[in-house]
Amino acid sequence: MSTIHVGIIGVGRIGHVHYLNLSQMPNVSIDYMCDLLADDSWADKYPAGGRFVTDYHEILADPAIDAVLICVPTDLHPQVIIDAAEAGKHIFCEKPVGFDNDQILAAYHAVKKAGVYFQTGFNRRQEKNFRRIVEARDAGQLGKPEVLKVTSRDPEPPSYDYVKRSGGLFKDMMIHDFDIVRFISGEEVRTVRAMGASLVDPHVGELGDVDTAIVTLEFASGMLGVIDNSRRAAYGYDQRIELFGSKGVAVCGNNHESETVVATADGVRRDLPLHFFLERYKEAYRLETEKFFDVVANGGEIECTFEDGIKAVRLAEAALESLNNGGAAVEVKPIE
Amino acid sequence: MSTIHVGIIGVGRIGHVHYLNLSQMPNVSIDYMCDLLADDSWADKYPAGGRFVTDYHEILADPAIDAVLICVPTDLHPQVIIDAAEAGKHIFCEKPVGFDNDQILAAYHAVKKAGVYFQTGFNRRQEKNFRRIVEARDAGQLGKPEVLKVTSRDPEPPSYDYVKRSGGLFKDMMIHDFDIVRFISGEEVRTVRAMGASLVDPHVGELGDVDTAIVTLEFASGMLGVIDNSRRAAYGYDQRIELFGSKGVAVCGNNHESETVVATADGVRRDLPLHFFLERYKEAYRLETEKFFDVVANGGEIECTFEDGIKAVRLAEAALESLNNGGAAVEVKPIE
Amino acid sequence: MSTIHVGIIGVGRIGHVHYLNLSQMPNVSIDYMCDLLADDSWADKYPAGGRFVTDYHEILADPAIDAVLICVPTDLHPQVIIDAAEAGKHIFCEKPVGFDNDQILAAYHAVKKAGVYFQTGFNRRQEKNFRRIVEARDAGQLGKPEVLKVTSRDPEPPSYDYVKRSGGLFKDMMIHDFDIVRFISGEEVRTVRAMGASLVDPHVGELGDVDTAIVTLEFASGMLGVIDNSRRAAYGYDQRIELFGSKGVAVCGNNHESETVVATADGVRRDLPLHFFLERYKEAYRLETEKFFDVVANGGEIECTFEDGIKAVRLAEAALESLNNGGAAVEVKPIE
Amino acid sequence: MSTIHVGIIGVGRIGHVHYLNLSQMPNVSIDYMCDLLADDSWADKYPAGGRFVTDYHEILADPAIDAVLICVPTDLHPQVIIDAAEAGKHIFCEKPVGFDNDQILAAYHAVKKAGVYFQTGFNRRQEKNFRRIVEARDAGQLGKPEVLKVTSRDPEPPSYDYVKRSGGLFKDMMIHDFDIVRFISGEEVRTVRAMGASLVDPHVGELGDVDTAIVTLEFASGMLGVIDNSRRAAYGYDQRIELFGSKGVAVCGNNHESETVVATADGVRRDLPLHFFLERYKEAYRLETEKFFDVVANGGEIECTFEDGIKAVRLAEAALESLNNGGAAVEVKPIE
Repeated sequence: MSTIHVGIIGVGRIGHVHYLNLSQMPNVSIDYMCDLLADDSWADKYPAGGRFVTDYHEILADPAIDAVLICVPTDLHPQVIIDAAEAGKHIFCEKPVGFDNDQILAAYHAVKKAGVYFQTGFNRRQEKNFRRIVEARDAGQLGKPEVLKVTSRDPEPPSYDYVKRSGGLFKDMMIHDFDIVRFISGEEVRTVRAMGASLVDPHVGELGDVDTAIVTLEFASGMLGVIDNSRRAAYGYDQRIELFGSKGVAVCGNNHESETVVATADGVRRDLPLHFFLERYKEAYRLETEKFFDVVANGGEIECTFEDGIKAVRLAEAALESLNNGGAAVEVKPIE
Repeated sequence: MSTIHVGIIGVGRIGHVHYLNLSQMPNVSIDYMCDLLADDSWADKYPAGGRFVTDYHEILADPAIDAVLICVPTDLHPQVIIDAAEAGKHIFCEKPVGFDNDQILAAYHAVKKAGVYFQTGFNRRQEKNFRRIVEARDAGQLGKPEVLKVTSRDPEPPSYDYVKRSGGLFKDMMIHDFDIVRFISGEEVRTVRAMGASLVDPHVGELGDVDTAIVTLEFASGMLGVIDNSRRAAYGYDQRIELFGSKGVAVCGNNHESETVVATADGVRRDLPLHFFLERYKEAYRLETEKFFDVVANGGEIECTFEDGIKAVRLAEAALESLNNGGAAVEVKPIE
Repeated sequence: MSTIHVGIIGVGRIGHVHYLNLSQMPNVSIDYMCDLLADDSWADKYPAGGRFVTDYHEILADPAIDAVLICVPTDLHPQVIIDAAEAGKHIFCEKPVGFDNDQILAAYHAVKKAGVYFQTGFNRRQEKNFRRIVEARDAGQLGKPEVLKVTSRDPEPPSYDYVKRSGGLFKDMMIHDFDIVRFISGEEVRTVRAMGASLVDPHVGELGDVDTAIVTLEFASGMLGVIDNSRRAAYGYDQRIELFGSKGVAVCGNNHESETVVATADGVRRDLPLHFFLERYKEAYRLETEKFFDVVANGGEIECTFEDGIKAVRLAEAALESLNNGGAAVEVKPIE
Repeated sequence: MSTIHVGIIGVGRIGHVHYLNLSQMPNVSIDYMCDLLADDSWADKYPAGGRFVTDYHEILADPAIDAVLICVPTDLHPQVIIDAAEAGKHIFCEKPVGFDNDQILAAYHAVKKAGVYFQTGFNRRQEKNFRRIVEARDAGQLGKPEVLKVTSRDPEPPSYDYVKRSGGLFKDMMIHDFDIVRFISGEEVRTVRAMGASLVDPHVGELGDVDTAIVTLEFASGMLGVIDNSRRAAYGYDQRIELFGSKGVAVCGNNHESETVVATADGVRRDLPLHFFLERYKEAYRLETEKFFDVVANGGEIECTFEDGIKAVRLAEAALESLNNGGAAVEVKPIE
């Protein structure tokens, strides 16, 4: 298997995760890492990082590069996608694919025109608990799906600065759940109804966002669904899914650091769930890039496409519109 | 403690449960059982049943009778309540307290005027798992409640005949959940939004009802809630509640006949949850009547009042109105 | 079904439990309660208790009495059994059936000669978790049994006075486990090896007893087994069984008051197991007497016989002999 | 951090595991892999494997080599250890350290004399569930330890050839448990009593070994312990530990591929535990070598020493002696 030459564009929290995973893949060579703050001193921190540049065009100009990982802030995604596609690079792009609809579509068309592989970074599709639910569904164990429930709670709220730039809870946080409901059900969502409030911190409301939300869904088949989100769970990251069907139900709880239970006079206790997404989805992050490079190397189907990325944005837009309309039913718009 | 003399009016499935529980209470004497089908041959089946009559007025006319249990079909509740109140009998009445609003209010006023004790038979308030959630809330372990989730699924759908007479899923089945959300949260619901479908059996839709529903709730404090119901769960009765707050979450699963787990080459398996409400709420049925008779004997506060019974009906009405209006937010009406 | 007339002989903790259960059985009449401390004032405490006597011969002399429950101290069991058998009464006797071997055999022969029903009060045979293991075994789900493990720990150690009169841990506490291993396996134990120590409280060792013990077992089929006991578990009553076979394993944990789990920043916690035997085996106590009276009324097989009672004593004797011989293998003696 | 140059001596199942882990460690260079079957064609399978040799002396003669991993058959361990120590190489050696006592001691003295680091490959000490038990113990949550229980069952029995060369169940399989009881308790074992049988396959008995065993332990503090082993568990690898103390108990179950539970009309089911040691202890294998190289690079204490390796052998020898003496108590011999 020949080596895939890669550049990582944007080295924040997620770019760092991808660096760690790629640096252990025998068939991947990280030739560039690009970040506004990057310089040669990064070689200590990123010994497998290749060259460190501040301008991603330098990466795109290198004909040896096969693929790029786009981990810059969301509002920059579309332009980098367009540039990378025009340079003929395969693209792995973090979620969400963008904020502005025209920009997203421009990027989408650039990718289609260039014919490069494009994967949206919805890492949760690789999580074993969730995939086990899909397996049960595909095996027919659950019969015809009728109700899908997703709970997603972060351990602690983000900073006000993050909230301001985030695009709002629906596009920043629930976007994962909007993708996962499509993945778990194998169906499209027809209509969305949303309610939300700033219960964790009233100031979030003053910033024009919510930190607690419940969204209900009607799927193409008639299946009903509900997602609940909170920006803060005192007991840690809480990510659970339940798919209920005519023949049964598949439910997954959280993952824990250990299975050990300690019973004392105070009660029967186990440790908290894995603290946050880097712990819970550690293996999922590795798998999603591994699969991407496998398709780049050997061809095949991208599991989470550009269309998937846009559809999640459409769901988030519909939820926001519903929230602004007192929870009225809003039809999910098509990609274009 | 002197003996309380009781008549059971209506001996269907629930009347039978109450008979069994009352017959084991040392301070309760069942002096009458009333049913359209009752006759003296019932003495074999109900050895502790006292006299068997077909007209409940006979019971009400007996000055020795302290209290009645009303277990007749729902549409008859208000009239029997009025008659019993006017006869000065304390009243335990099955849920829902009635279908017709004017009749319900007439009964309500009759009870207020008579000054008799009145308890609505929302047995689930006595269930240990659910009460443990309230204990955690009251102990401050959960902090300020923010999200309440209730799942309630029956093992199998009722007959078409039952569906026709039931008053619909919201008044017949979800009525329990409408009460339990008020009990678990200790708060009133302000607005309701409902979605529903006949996913289990399309014919239920032709009968004008739904068999699958998701209802979202806004509480007075701003807390959000969601209830999901299905008339059929292949794996048995599924009754779970989750109260999420600023400091933690309390979650309860189902009860099982045994704790035994069997692991073979096919998987790690435990038996299904307790099959249906008679099994799951067996002890709750006993406790609710025990507490009623305790108040009748010794005074004190009725835990589940007539007002509670009416408020659950108001929630069901709001949900039905929302369902008929595309899931629009509907404010819950006051008692009168 | 005609009424069975019963006398309860000995009204300590267990006699009280039996009173409560029998007083709710429609076909059982408690005609007498006998205790050294009994007098007519007991009618307040035991309204269904019939007459209160201090000499059990008074009960045995009453021809209306069908059966007696023997709940006196263990050393008195054999004499009361003999007297009751000679009076032609059916006998339910608490465990263990006695301490002194000659006395036990004399009682055994008296019962055989009289031809009355005799049940040993090993209530745990009725516990649902344990019976579910037997069901799995009988259904062939476990294949050929190979290893049986029993854990049994009390929440708190008994008083020194109790320890002195108890007959020692093997005859007083592990006697239950010696019976349950025969029940769960459906096999006889061939040899026993014991180790023990006074780890909870050294003074127990000075009294000639142990409070912590591990006993290993070889069964007739070659199956191996192990029982571990402790007189004190800080987290409450701990009663678990595991039967491992060629095709699988059946494991049961403890029962809890509720299924509710509370997760906070401190961990994920559930309440302690049911505190002690009166809570854990409440239903088992009821079932064992119900089944006894069913056989008395309708004939059939006693599920836990006099032989079962004696075999458990033989196992306890073998364990004690092994402990006194450095844990050497001791063959279990036959009944006589 | 400078690079550590390493040779892997013996490339069977475990040597392969170590190769995979080492090849991903940035500060470790695998310069040699040695195996009787090795040749240059191995470069395809082991691209990070350095040179492939059939004589380990070639590795020891290379002054660039810092450390070796010894993964050859157990009977060869002592000689390779001696040669490596004399060559001044740090040594990571698989368990058990050897079969023959004189050879083991010769190797032990050679290592002491050379002053090289030596780690015994008891990987389970790194398993998170087990370490969580030790954390609970060290934090005082369990109080004074009183009973330690270890269950260890393989998914399927090894081949007859393997059984013949294995040194027997105690030295081959339970050796892990003999080490883990010392690690979990932090104490030495004083006496051992063993019972065993060939219940899985009678032919194992004809080969002079057992496939099912229960061993009881007395620790220095008076704590009691029990280990049960089976060579076959139909439901997969079963590795559980329970440490019971004066203030509580810590219990760990097995790890599973997913947390997902599927409930259908057939029961409530989850998938089997992780199938075997390569899956269950995958991370533990990585951690043990990572820690070894950390000490080699930076100094510090080896967590699992040569003494630990020998003490586990002493326990296995005592168990075998006890088994051959009808389960009599056997004192564990000192290292020399």
